[in-house]
Amino acid sequence: MKQNGFYAQSGGVTAVINATACGVIETARKKKDRIGKILAGRNGIIGALTEDLIDTSKESDRAIAALRYTPGGAFGSARYKLKGLEENRAEYQRLIEVFKAHNIGYFFYNGGGDSMDTAHKVSQIGQKLGFPVTCIGIPKTVDNDLPLTDTCPGFGSVAKYVALATREAALDVASMAKTSTKVFILEVMGRHAGWIAAAGGLAGHNQSDAPHIILFPEIPFNTPHFLARVKKCVDRYGYCVIVVSEGVRHPNGRFLAESGIHDAFGHAQLGGVAATVATLVKEKLGLKYHYAIADYLQRSARHIASKVDVEQAYAVGKKAVEFALKGHNAVMPIIVRTSDSPYRWTIKHAPLSRVANKEKMMPRSFISRDGFSITKACRRYLEPLIRGEDYPPYQKGLPRYAELRNVPVQRQLDKNFVLR
Amino acid sequence: MKQNGFYAQSGGVTAVINATACGVIETARKKKDRIGKILAGRNGIIGALTEDLIDTSKESDRAIAALRYTPGGAFGSARYKLKGLEENRAEYQRLIEVFKAHNIGYFFYNGGGDSMDTAHKVSQIGQKLGFPVTCIGIPKTVDNDLPLTDTCPGFGSVAKYVALATREAALDVASMAKTSTKVFILEVMGRHAGWIAAAGGLAGHNQSDAPHIILFPEIPFNTPHFLARVKKCVDRYGYCVIVVSEGVRHPNGRFLAESGIHDAFGHAQLGGVAATVATLVKEKLGLKYHYAIADYLQRSARHIASKVDVEQAYAVGKKAVEFALKGHNAVMPIIVRTSDSPYRWTIKHAPLSRVANKEKMMPRSFISRDGFSITKACRRYLEPLIRGEDYPPYQKGLPRYAELRNVPVQRQLDKNFVLR
Repeated sequence: MKQNGFYAQSGGVTAVINATACGVIETARKKKDRIGKILAGRNGIIGALTEDLIDTSKESDRAIAALRYTPGGAFGSARYKLKGLEENRAEYQRLIEVFKAHNIGYFFYNGGGDSMDTAHKVSQIGQKLGFPVTCIGIPKTVDNDLPLTDTCPGFGSVAKYVALATREAALDVASMAKTSTKVFILEVMGRHAGWIAAAGGLAGHNQSDAPHIILFPEIPFNTPHFLARVKKCVDRYGYCVIVVSEGVRHPNGRFLAESGIHDAFGHAQLGGVAATVATLVKEKLGLKYHYAIADYLQRSARHIASKVDVEQAYAVGKKAVEFALKGHNAVMPIIVRTSDSPYRWTIKHAPLSRVANKEKMMPRSFISRDGFSITKACRRYLEPLIRGEDYPPYQKGLPRYAELRNVPVQRQLDKNFVLR
Repeated sequence: MKQNGFYAQSGGVTAVINATACGVIETARKKKDRIGKILAGRNGIIGALTEDLIDTSKESDRAIAALRYTPGGAFGSARYKLKGLEENRAEYQRLIEVFKAHNIGYFFYNGGGDSMDTAHKVSQIGQKLGFPVTCIGIPKTVDNDLPLTDTCPGFGSVAKYVALATREAALDVASMAKTSTKVFILEVMGRHAGWIAAAGGLAGHNQSDAPHIILFPEIPFNTPHFLARVKKCVDRYGYCVIVVSEGVRHPNGRFLAESGIHDAFGHAQLGGVAATVATLVKEKLGLKYHYAIADYLQRSARHIASKVDVEQAYAVGKKAVEFALKGHNAVMPIIVRTSDSPYRWTIKHAPLSRVANKEKMMPRSFISRDGFSITKACRRYLEPLIRGEDYPPYQKGLPRYAELRNVPVQRQLDKNFVLR
């Protein structure tokens, strides 16, 4: 008897995670003879634990197709990490119980490193408990930190957004610098790795082009070095554009964002690194600044998603179903680059055991010697990932994004499961 | 003998001010028999005062056409307000002197209320000094605060950006709210009037849609009222999206942005209103927040400009030249709305004397009784302004924006002019 598939989104969402959902569901619909319904977890894995499943078969083909161009997580995502098998066996057992109750033989888990680890563990425990489940981890993360894959779906679109925002804001600043703002700071995501900040570097080509300074989490912040560079830049070009990663740290390891700003109640202000850098520029150089904090805008900007990223996000979803039906278990589809220019790629798979809990850091060779810009090697890597536009349809001036019905599946189990 | 025209950009730039420049220059090129070169002020009016003029005739037709889709100010803009005629007569005399030296008979000044006042004064002094200059003020401001015109070129694109960013970020927040951020705050421009914040309201249609709260500068901030609304919203929908204008004030008139946050040096932190609102939400309600500060990104986002706005920006530039050649003096092209749906508009003109130094505030009838959202009347006004997309061409994943040569005009005067 054919079995159903379970699909869940995990961790921070992206502009294209729904394109992956679209790839999973559309592919499963084409293989109806081999796989049953795709049931989605409402709020990710929490939906599986609490038996709160969404029946995606209730959505029209048109609604599912619209997922391809809809940002956010259509079924809800969750920041909920399953612990180790020994520490919290009950959660894994519950998953298997729910899967059994709903005849789920395929587990598609769309997330980052932690989720790959969970998918790996579920594949092990299912076997042990006598209900084997085919587990496929599907890569997703704006942080671009999964190993083995050329890039992670979600990253290319953030990269494009950040490069574009830097270029546009720089044109604004350049035209006003004579009498107004001299230093502009754009704060971007990336607490551990500088991939997103690096993408800002694509905005310019020459030394005189913005961004003039990129602050990477990989490079300890050197205050005098930084200030000297800002000053030199303003003296030479009239203005200075800085892209700063939220994860930049002092040499002692402390985040810049925590550098002693307090609110009216005396609590540390989590105002972010941009405000800190701006204050420094003002205090030490007396230069007028402005700053922008892209925050969620950068990872939800589906309106300017990278076409390559959308295609890859869809492809990993499609391939996840195909790999599962071919009998591959405990694997993750990976993007393999076969050529830089023109960019060519194909989808292969890697065992989850080799992916789980490993972070791909940015190579030092991608950052210039002075620590303030990207190298040619980095540009060669990044440039293909932001190629192409993939505009959503518009209605009355705004994108017409998918609105799913998210119909719940009838519960089969008596017990409620209490989340930690 | 035919005379040259002088064009200058003034104040904060927009995503479409160069579309106006394009309209001026292309139209003048078509009327070569009537008008000479268009000379542009490098850094706006400062270029005129210091005789630092740019010869736009050195640019190719293709480069000028590319201005239509290039954000920022292609010739440089300036925050430089000419004082009253009596206070600083020398500046006005200098302008006329420069105009005379370069055979400039037409003054096109592209800016907001202050600039309209300057254009008006120049038209008066030219007459008095025996060198009459035809002065046309061309409207531009993201603040949408010029009177008589239906809207100001630049505003429609910011409005579209803010509505779009609100919708996209809201999808992100909604999908994560179960286990992560409950309150998201988007800080937008608008120090005096809530037009830009109001545009955020276009992102939703029902009470349950984001944005759930808009904070307008027109409505004094009521802390308990605000917190109660946030709480109700999170209880009911699971999350709360807030659009906040930088100009929101306490009932005592103090900006929220100044509310007592100090940096490590004890100086007031100009961290902005978003950080202040976020801290309040955290302190009083204990809810996890995130915030974005759109800053210059909102007014430089040419990649998602409103098509209507681009067309209007071009049209006011074109009409400025046509009005000047028809002998109209001391006027501003205005956009006249003849129908809401479908949106129909035409360009007429109004005397600068009726425009200068007058601010168009948002009517109270555009804000809901509770002060947190926009009314149907407001929606009816705003909706047409964000209609249509006008995508720039792309190359390697990024917009291919105009790069002008900005060739200086040979100086004719001996004297340098020292700016105040």
